[in-house]
Amino acid sequence: MITAERIVRLGSETAFAVSEEARAFAAAGNRVYPFHLGDMDLPTPENIIHAAHRAMRDGKTGYAPNAGIPELRDALAADINRSRGTHYTADSVAVQPGGKPVIGKFILALMNPGDEVLYPNPGYPIYESQIEFHGGRGLPYGFLPGKENFHLDMDALRRQVSPRTKLLIVNDLQNPTGAVSPDEELEQIAEFALRHDLRVLCDEAYFDIRYRGRSRSLASFPGMEERCVILYTFSKKYAMTGWRLGAAVGPRQIIGVIAKLNLNDESCTNHFVQIAGVEALTGDQSGSRRIIDVLKERRDAAAEILRAIPGVSCYVPEATFYLYPDVTGLMEAKGFSDYESFRKDVLRKTGVSFCTRLHFGKALPGETRRHLRLAYSGIGVEDIREGLLKFAAYAQG
Amino acid sequence: MITAERIVRLGSETAFAVSEEARAFAAAGNRVYPFHLGDMDLPTPENIIHAAHRAMRDGKTGYAPNAGIPELRDALAADINRSRGTHYTADSVAVQPGGKPVIGKFILALMNPGDEVLYPNPGYPIYESQIEFHGGRGLPYGFLPGKENFHLDMDALRRQVSPRTKLLIVNDLQNPTGAVSPDEELEQIAEFALRHDLRVLCDEAYFDIRYRGRSRSLASFPGMEERCVILYTFSKKYAMTGWRLGAAVGPRQIIGVIAKLNLNDESCTNHFVQIAGVEALTGDQSGSRRIIDVLKERRDAAAEILRAIPGVSCYVPEATFYLYPDVTGLMEAKGFSDYESFRKDVLRKTGVSFCTRLHFGKALPGETRRHLRLAYSGIGVEDIREGLLKFAAYAQG
Repeated sequence: MITAERIVRLGSETAFAVSEEARAFAAAGNRVYPFHLGDMDLPTPENIIHAAHRAMRDGKTGYAPNAGIPELRDALAADINRSRGTHYTADSVAVQPGGKPVIGKFILALMNPGDEVLYPNPGYPIYESQIEFHGGRGLPYGFLPGKENFHLDMDALRRQVSPRTKLLIVNDLQNPTGAVSPDEELEQIAEFALRHDLRVLCDEAYFDIRYRGRSRSLASFPGMEERCVILYTFSKKYAMTGWRLGAAVGPRQIIGVIAKLNLNDESCTNHFVQIAGVEALTGDQSGSRRIIDVLKERRDAAAEILRAIPGVSCYVPEATFYLYPDVTGLMEAKGFSDYESFRKDVLRKTGVSFCTRLHFGKALPGETRRHLRLAYSGIGVEDIREGLLKFAAYAQG
Repeated sequence: MITAERIVRLGSETAFAVSEEARAFAAAGNRVYPFHLGDMDLPTPENIIHAAHRAMRDGKTGYAPNAGIPELRDALAADINRSRGTHYTADSVAVQPGGKPVIGKFILALMNPGDEVLYPNPGYPIYESQIEFHGGRGLPYGFLPGKENFHLDMDALRRQVSPRTKLLIVNDLQNPTGAVSPDEELEQIAEFALRHDLRVLCDEAYFDIRYRGRSRSLASFPGMEERCVILYTFSKKYAMTGWRLGAAVGPRQIIGVIAKLNLNDESCTNHFVQIAGVEALTGDQSGSRRIIDVLKERRDAAAEILRAIPGVSCYVPEATFYLYPDVTGLMEAKGFSDYESFRKDVLRKTGVSFCTRLHFGKALPGETRRHLRLAYSGIGVEDIREGLLKFAAYAQG
């Protein structure tokens, strides 16, 4: 093997294998109901497309500054201050080609080899991958079932933290569980971070995918703005996943380092896409509101059917576009002890394609309940009903 | 300092400070002649803009595969095989958000900490920065004056190589010198890489910016396709610097690792920009030909004036959009012993803004000649004449 030794520590998103399997099953002439995708099937609002096209024609096709164009950095600082109650300025913002680059750059900027990093599991698999790739040690923490939703396992944080723990990754409005921390929980997390002097990555990718209540940022708690880096993305709120536009927002010193990483890694983010980002933030918001309306209708349709299936229990999260049903009873009833056999059987017999808990990290010690993750961002409400009714029939068959 | 220790090894492009100085000088009401920019002031050809807009409207706004859309990977493999005589297939190609990301990913994929990497100096400063950032040791090699152009200092390669040397970075059609390796030189480099079992990054950013003769890739020499990774970019040939579109092209195993880095770092490159890239490669090429015509006229205008200035000697490279005049005599005549004082004096007195040798790495031991780098990609022919005539008058004043 000629590749560098660090490459063996580089992880992946195993959910892509599910996509590939669904694609092959559909190509063989079968009907597939795609609940596995984190992608969106909704169009980007027209005013944003128009702004990008106008900018291209106006010659905004040359390099942009490494940290982003001033207009977008200003607009992001203003938007985040308004929605989070923070006090950022343009130089607190480093524009990125997507939200994801913030994960690797946060870790490169702040983690030394051997440092420990607390991260959510089940969670977005790139956290663990980037931590280990760059020589850190990941400490996974989980989520526990509550009355109306999952809540973060604070004990898992307290049990594992040590003087070697330097960073904490928090993904409130969480993928895959849909967990949303109430204010008291955010306050406990903030206190914990302050007590142990942790820098925090606040992955707020789903901050604006909210159907009820109001999202609150960990960065808005006393003493936290100085130690949080917010991962911001245009992907979900404006259905811009394939545009690759996001930002790191945080203390100026850290943002300066992240901008220097931009310079070294990719120079800058597409110039006219940044101008479209300014339109997204400051222009007509009706497109974004429509996206939320569509997603809410899908959530309700999916949850209603799932919750009626014997052996399945499912919260109805007020945020994200995921459902994370507990299918322990159903899997037992159908005689499955492993996730992959169950997933493939459902796909083969119903066309319903989803990810399971295993696509979001290794099961934690003592974890006995079984969960699936169903995304409703890439499938229309009629197909949701048709697919999940087939799944319900399979479950009861 | 709370940032990670590796951050002190992260380099920069000091040329950005020159841009900032020129901007401030212009903002104070002065005329500036921008020869410092590596950016282009030419519009992207219309057919490419049209393809991007059509793709956006057609809903190509969702995620793309990590390694790029199949159509673009196919088109790139075909285009590179045609122009380089290589044998790549779609899975030899990992699309990137620009050419620059190939540098860091090549190094992450193939270099272990402590490994030595041969790289050009003067050269693009990101090579050295990424080598040292990821714990390698950079071995700089230079260029020597020849009859009609600079040539690569083969002795510097042979003198420094050791069993610890794992990688070689070659930037034929070179920034900043404009050096182009003749076939015999490429053959020597290929033999050297084979003898010492080096993997090679072929930075071919300027491969198509060629006014006379035909570019040849190091990857086309026997045994080299298996050990070269080509850095390909759309930036120069199609005036798409701010679009951020490029690719790593090389052996499938290495490309697989680079695609996995894509997945971890930024997911994918903008979807509709990739579709525009297919149009760039397979559509009407008249826009790209016009770009070359414009650049050639600029080169000739700039070189003519520079070469007539006493104390200045300057090759007329058949490639790139840079001139790298030797100004040793002029600096002595004007009483300057350091680059920065000279550069600032010229800017203040004439408005002519350029980079110097220092923006492309530290001077090598024994280096006594003084050079400037003038880019003519971001300044029209009339302004080139006006600015350089002022520079000529200053030189002789």
